[in-house]
Amino acid sequence: MSIQVPYDRRLSACGVKHLALYQAIRDSIVAGKLPPGAKLPSTRTLADAYGLSRGSVSIAYEMLAAEGYVRASVGRGTYVAGAEARFLDSRQRQSSSGEGAELSSNAEALGGDNGLPATRFPTSPAALGLSGWGLRLIGEARLGESACDKTQGERPPLQQSISFKPRGMGEQWFPWMSWKAAVSAEWRRRGPAPAEDGTAAAGSEELRRAIAGRLRRERGILCEAEDIVVTGGSMQAIALLAQLLLEPGKSAVSEDPCYSGIQRAIRASGAALIPAPVDRQGIVPDDWPAELLFVTPTRQFPTGAVLTYERRMALLDWAVKRSAWIVEDDYDSEFRWSGRPLEPLKALDRQERVVYVGSFSRAMRQEVRIGYAVLPSALREPFLLAKQLYDPYPAGLTEQRALADWMNQGEYDRHLRRSRRIFNRLQGLLREELSKLEPLFDVHPADAGLLLFATWKDSPERYDQFASACREAGVSWGDGSIYVAERRPDERTALFGFAHLDEEGIAAGMHRIRETAVRLGRLNARAEVANAAQKYAARNGGAEDA
Amino acid sequence: MSIQVPYDRRLSACGVKHLALYQAIRDSIVAGKLPPGAKLPSTRTLADAYGLSRGSVSIAYEMLAAEGYVRASVGRGTYVAGAEARFLDSRQRQSSSGEGAELSSNAEALGGDNGLPATRFPTSPAALGLSGWGLRLIGEARLGESACDKTQGERPPLQQSISFKPRGMGEQWFPWMSWKAAVSAEWRRRGPAPAEDGTAAAGSEELRRAIAGRLRRERGILCEAEDIVVTGGSMQAIALLAQLLLEPGKSAVSEDPCYSGIQRAIRASGAALIPAPVDRQGIVPDDWPAELLFVTPTRQFPTGAVLTYERRMALLDWAVKRSAWIVEDDYDSEFRWSGRPLEPLKALDRQERVVYVGSFSRAMRQEVRIGYAVLPSALREPFLLAKQLYDPYPAGLTEQRALADWMNQGEYDRHLRRSRRIFNRLQGLLREELSKLEPLFDVHPADAGLLLFATWKDSPERYDQFASACREAGVSWGDGSIYVAERRPDERTALFGFAHLDEEGIAAGMHRIRETAVRLGRLNARAEVANAAQKYAARNGGAEDA
Repeated sequence: MSIQVPYDRRLSACGVKHLALYQAIRDSIVAGKLPPGAKLPSTRTLADAYGLSRGSVSIAYEMLAAEGYVRASVGRGTYVAGAEARFLDSRQRQSSSGEGAELSSNAEALGGDNGLPATRFPTSPAALGLSGWGLRLIGEARLGESACDKTQGERPPLQQSISFKPRGMGEQWFPWMSWKAAVSAEWRRRGPAPAEDGTAAAGSEELRRAIAGRLRRERGILCEAEDIVVTGGSMQAIALLAQLLLEPGKSAVSEDPCYSGIQRAIRASGAALIPAPVDRQGIVPDDWPAELLFVTPTRQFPTGAVLTYERRMALLDWAVKRSAWIVEDDYDSEFRWSGRPLEPLKALDRQERVVYVGSFSRAMRQEVRIGYAVLPSALREPFLLAKQLYDPYPAGLTEQRALADWMNQGEYDRHLRRSRRIFNRLQGLLREELSKLEPLFDVHPADAGLLLFATWKDSPERYDQFASACREAGVSWGDGSIYVAERRPDERTALFGFAHLDEEGIAAGMHRIRETAVRLGRLNARAEVANAAQKYAARNGGAEDA
Repeated sequence: MSIQVPYDRRLSACGVKHLALYQAIRDSIVAGKLPPGAKLPSTRTLADAYGLSRGSVSIAYEMLAAEGYVRASVGRGTYVAGAEARFLDSRQRQSSSGEGAELSSNAEALGGDNGLPATRFPTSPAALGLSGWGLRLIGEARLGESACDKTQGERPPLQQSISFKPRGMGEQWFPWMSWKAAVSAEWRRRGPAPAEDGTAAAGSEELRRAIAGRLRRERGILCEAEDIVVTGGSMQAIALLAQLLLEPGKSAVSEDPCYSGIQRAIRASGAALIPAPVDRQGIVPDDWPAELLFVTPTRQFPTGAVLTYERRMALLDWAVKRSAWIVEDDYDSEFRWSGRPLEPLKALDRQERVVYVGSFSRAMRQEVRIGYAVLPSALREPFLLAKQLYDPYPAGLTEQRALADWMNQGEYDRHLRRSRRIFNRLQGLLREELSKLEPLFDVHPADAGLLLFATWKDSPERYDQFASACREAGVSWGDGSIYVAERRPDERTALFGFAHLDEEGIAAGMHRIRETAVRLGRLNARAEVANAAQKYAARNGGAEDA
């Protein structure tokens, strides 16, 4: 008995045998081609069928087991676990994970002589003695490495090339002088050391007060300084929450596509990841059998969809019904181009099921590593203990205090007002330029955020060819596939960030893309002119000819 | 059937029924009075026997199960797990942990009406939906809360009171002006942003180069910048290593006593904690059935013992034999008062089994949250991935770069030379003063570090009485019991830190302690004089009478 999995395709993409096998089997399980309960062939059978060493097959099986895709039973074989099996039969699951541990010992016993090609990890992961968490973490990294299009980022871009890959706010738009003055002043002032108890780990009280005031005022979230824990960027809050709430046997929902850090944190925890589809109204609510949901309602990352009010209420109902937690990642709420923002889940949450996570790294600069979590009362203490284990004393306290001061002095608001004007202009320009590529890309509507999300309208092969030609011409953009949990092989998406560029850069970059499109015959010069004429006509009420 | 556990003693110490029961059963298991495999009574039986609600007993059992002390099997009862059971029978362990999960659901079903007194955690931990890691973390915090002597830290010390509780370097000894100038200069200079790949999370390359140079020069450790990952204090490195290398079913050795953060990290990971006794030569090597050892060879924390060369080699042999990892926490190597330091384990390690962890929080100030790990090549990438999950972009990069500059300019060395002179004087004074308390305390020898460790020579009751009287008189010290994994009920130990004080403060504080001792009849005034005379005589070659 053997199985048919897309091994050759994966091998040609990543070049490493056991990784390719791991990915191929994973693809088939996720696509439902290998259903829950299906028996996988023995390592010997599969090794013979695909011309691999048994060691390579063992490593692939072990990685699948560490991520919960398969469960192995010594003497009986290896079976596909699958979502249903995980939720319905917890006893079986628990006992199978025990036996899975024995499988890894076997893999370990096979040890070094498996003839693996050299990878980033010189020692076999089994021989390192890593925890399940550690194994899943490096498995995920290997995957991320090879799952990226090989055509993307293969060599450093040319000096003069223009990249639309989202990078947050550009150096030129951030008021460094004012921020540096605030930090320097705080260094001169140097407030008292925080109390030497657990609460010190929550971060600067001044800053937590300033954040609470802002959230009450701007987002309608009723919270106080003591509900807030300051973290080193929002990713730290997400990673701590995953560790505190997830483990093998539990399940977490994440939007698909979503920020890859969320996927990494869930997968490392060992919980099953349930990818939830996203449409033009945001995440599609469902009765997920899960304990935790990560969601970006204000502006879905990366598609930009705004979650409707009805769906927000549906998510809250789900959380109450399931006694599940929701982590609301409000990563980008400061930059809106139209309309009033809907209320965050946290403001609508009457049953204390929502953790609200925010960050200053986006509204300021990535270098400002200040994020925070607003916690329901029941999670406050556990979260603080988790933070304390990693950071008994708040790191970057001087910067936190400087930020509080910067906010209290109105500098933060001034900065936001100024940069909103700038970015509104830049996103308008980019949107107009992208509309000229209508035959190629479908640009999603978005009323907030620092990037535009677009779906490629043609075949993946043509996308790869086009993206590659553009890179040759000195222009590139962000690859949407790295945010996708369940890869749709026929879909290609692109991210166009603008906040690190200026108007000239955007115009020049888009010009290069159009030129390339014309050169490849994907866009004809006349279509472009016609397009412009149509737009002009539409704007001026029709009738006229250009 | 019931069992005899020291419940009443625990209850009088902590006042909370389910915690007292949890601790009492834990004590009996650790002491071997309840051996592995022993069946515990049903919740009803135990509730009746001790006059508790069944809910309280369930919570206590659940906490024991979460920490791996017992395993429960629905319909069969609850059994003591114990270390041997864990190592020998991994299949049984795994399946029992699955059934333990069912026990917690039962406890959850019992829910709110268990008549528990209010604790820091308003919701029952089972109802929070925490991971095993989260449950263990808050269980540990509850324990720490109640295990501390109630007499310690019960109320804030008087304004004028003197505390010898170790707090690291005092404000007055740290060259704030120079350090602030370095940070401000770095803020003005603002180097380039680090590359946007995983290696950015390793921290400032300048600083890693400076640390590597210093370690080669001062500690004989052959390492390069790329072997080093900068962390937010050494505790972050310890917590990440525990997460990466430990999990339920594994075991880790820690010195007993040791820094409580190490115990917390091990317990949260779910690994079994094997406490290793420490004598005057440091940790006593053994053939521990464990995957990881945390050790402080340079200066054992908190006893101050220096690990002998033979024992260092024995630890390395153990690690090679067991394929185990050693985390060498070199927390205090900068402050030596005599002799040359022995080579760190990392310098003696020929087989790449040692992770060396260091910190600047002690040699500088606690506010400087900069620590680091020097990793064997096999662990470099996994550790970096773990760090990256929590901190994709290095927090506090400006301070890291400022520190590199401070080191390169020689300011760090100047600061160390100056503070070594000061602290050498202070520790000499403190040691002399403590020698006058010889009838009460046995002060351990130590040739390095910023605290002195002492064992109380009389009964615990008299210690509690004495410590309490001293607090009334406005002087206190650190409680050694919080560093102990296996509490020895008959032992009391004390920590006297000096680096946050000056000579006047030390003299005044010790004077208050002596006065109190004389008042309580624990030290007579004449004994003190005689003691001084004897010392004088010894110094001057005998013969003379004072």
